[in-house]
Amino acid sequence: MSALENSRAIRAEILTIGNEVLTGRVVNTNAAYIARRLSLVGVSVKRITVVADDEEEIVAAVRESLSRKPEYLITTGGLGPTYDDISMGAIAKAVGLPLKKNELALSWIQQKIRSENAPLTPEREKMAYLPDPSKELDNPVGVAPGAWIEAGGSDHKTIIMVLPGVPAEMEAMLEKHLLPVLLREQRLFVAEREISVSGIFEAALAPYIKKLVRTDSALYVKTHPKGTADKPSILVHVEYASADKQEAERRAEEAIKAVKEEAQRLGATITRHHNEFAAL
Amino acid sequence: MSALENSRAIRAEILTIGNEVLTGRVVNTNAAYIARRLSLVGVSVKRITVVADDEEEIVAAVRESLSRKPEYLITTGGLGPTYDDISMGAIAKAVGLPLKKNELALSWIQQKIRSENAPLTPEREKMAYLPDPSKELDNPVGVAPGAWIEAGGSDHKTIIMVLPGVPAEMEAMLEKHLLPVLLREQRLFVAEREISVSGIFEAALAPYIKKLVRTDSALYVKTHPKGTADKPSILVHVEYASADKQEAERRAEEAIKAVKEEAQRLGATITRHHNEFAAL
Repeated sequence: MSALENSRAIRAEILTIGNEVLTGRVVNTNAAYIARRLSLVGVSVKRITVVADDEEEIVAAVRESLSRKPEYLITTGGLGPTYDDISMGAIAKAVGLPLKKNELALSWIQQKIRSENAPLTPEREKMAYLPDPSKELDNPVGVAPGAWIEAGGSDHKTIIMVLPGVPAEMEAMLEKHLLPVLLREQRLFVAEREISVSGIFEAALAPYIKKLVRTDSALYVKTHPKGTADKPSILVHVEYASADKQEAERRAEEAIKAVKEEAQRLGATITRHHNEFAAL
Repeated sequence: MSALENSRAIRAEILTIGNEVLTGRVVNTNAAYIARRLSLVGVSVKRITVVADDEEEIVAAVRESLSRKPEYLITTGGLGPTYDDISMGAIAKAVGLPLKKNELALSWIQQKIRSENAPLTPEREKMAYLPDPSKELDNPVGVAPGAWIEAGGSDHKTIIMVLPGVPAEMEAMLEKHLLPVLLREQRLFVAEREISVSGIFEAALAPYIKKLVRTDSALYVKTHPKGTADKPSILVHVEYASADKQEAERRAEEAIKAVKEEAQRLGATITRHHNEFAAL
């Protein structure tokens, strides 16, 4: 954490909107993902709240969060085309803004559904209605656009970032629209390393990686299972955030080396080793 | 859900206390477990909140929850012996009760640590201090006792159930101290079935089970991986809750049969089949 000490303290809250989380049918991995990514860049998540797809509940939760004055409120869920996807309207209501058809957002939706030969139904058009004013956020993975809303009074500004609940969409939009902003605000660099590990299952490596990341919140490790049941392989992605570019690079290198050695100890072979440095 | 329709609507909230969830190092599986178990018996989880191991945050979150008047508030985390385990004191403060040494809770702690030949340090003795009045809840798996607190004014009563954050301890205490109460309150029966499946991995069966449980909140399926990497096996446990004992039994039987057939289709053999009926 030492490299992050000079960064300004930024507080965030996460609001997960979705009945499936409240019934336990879905584990709230979205909140964990956001929390990990924000922690990496020195942002402190103060609270995670889960409410149903219910206007009254969403309005209340957004207002309660704003009253605690975080710098960021990230919401996930409820942006799709179906009748129970009501998050955008409820969030607009909570901050006293009208919904307005956003032409840029509409053009993105039209482009996506044209490529799928699907008609522009009223349900799909609904997804182009965003709080006015707000900034439309494009969704590189799915259809539903997000929104970036400036809320709060003259004494404090809270950015509300409205994201979909589909994990791949949420992740892509967080990476594209928020993390670069936070890195600039925090004056941080992120060094990245990646290796491919063959011959062992993701589960075999998991305990070591769990232990490794616990030691340092500026370290982020993600594994992606690849290959097949009889030919398992894992893509291991490491990031290290620091105000010092050299330190970021050195620590990322150390981490990927540690993972590599553990994987070899477990009988794996390293099939690919990327060493590119990427400052987001 | 039809069998649950006659049950009284019971609303619950879950408060997860723990820095590890807010940094994303730990996914909030505890909340998902509680939500699944409560949904099974017709209890509606209205909100899940996660806060840090911080007195001010815990006090605020408990008071906010009580202001929404749920019938139950289940808290997890922060009951251990270390300096940052402050949940019991913070919850007591939130409801205006003093902490008092609970002799029964202390005797449980003494018994546990005696069997481990560990000394009764002040940190361990601390775990016997519970809100007064409250009912001590024994922990069949670990050391830290929980508490059952009656909170709220003359117009509404909220039961606050304070549980540890270690999943196995939390689960055992929820099963022992809360679910039987809810089943009685809701006048529900739970039928159970169990099979052992050999020759396939848990992951192979997971998509089918995920689909199966989505259809019916009165159905609960839990799988436990057993065996080894070259000799995998899975223990499949099914529960069905209904006001009608016969219906509970019939539906549990249908569900275990469906799992059995899918497992066989995937190439597994069924090695054990328990048919006992258990009304909790």
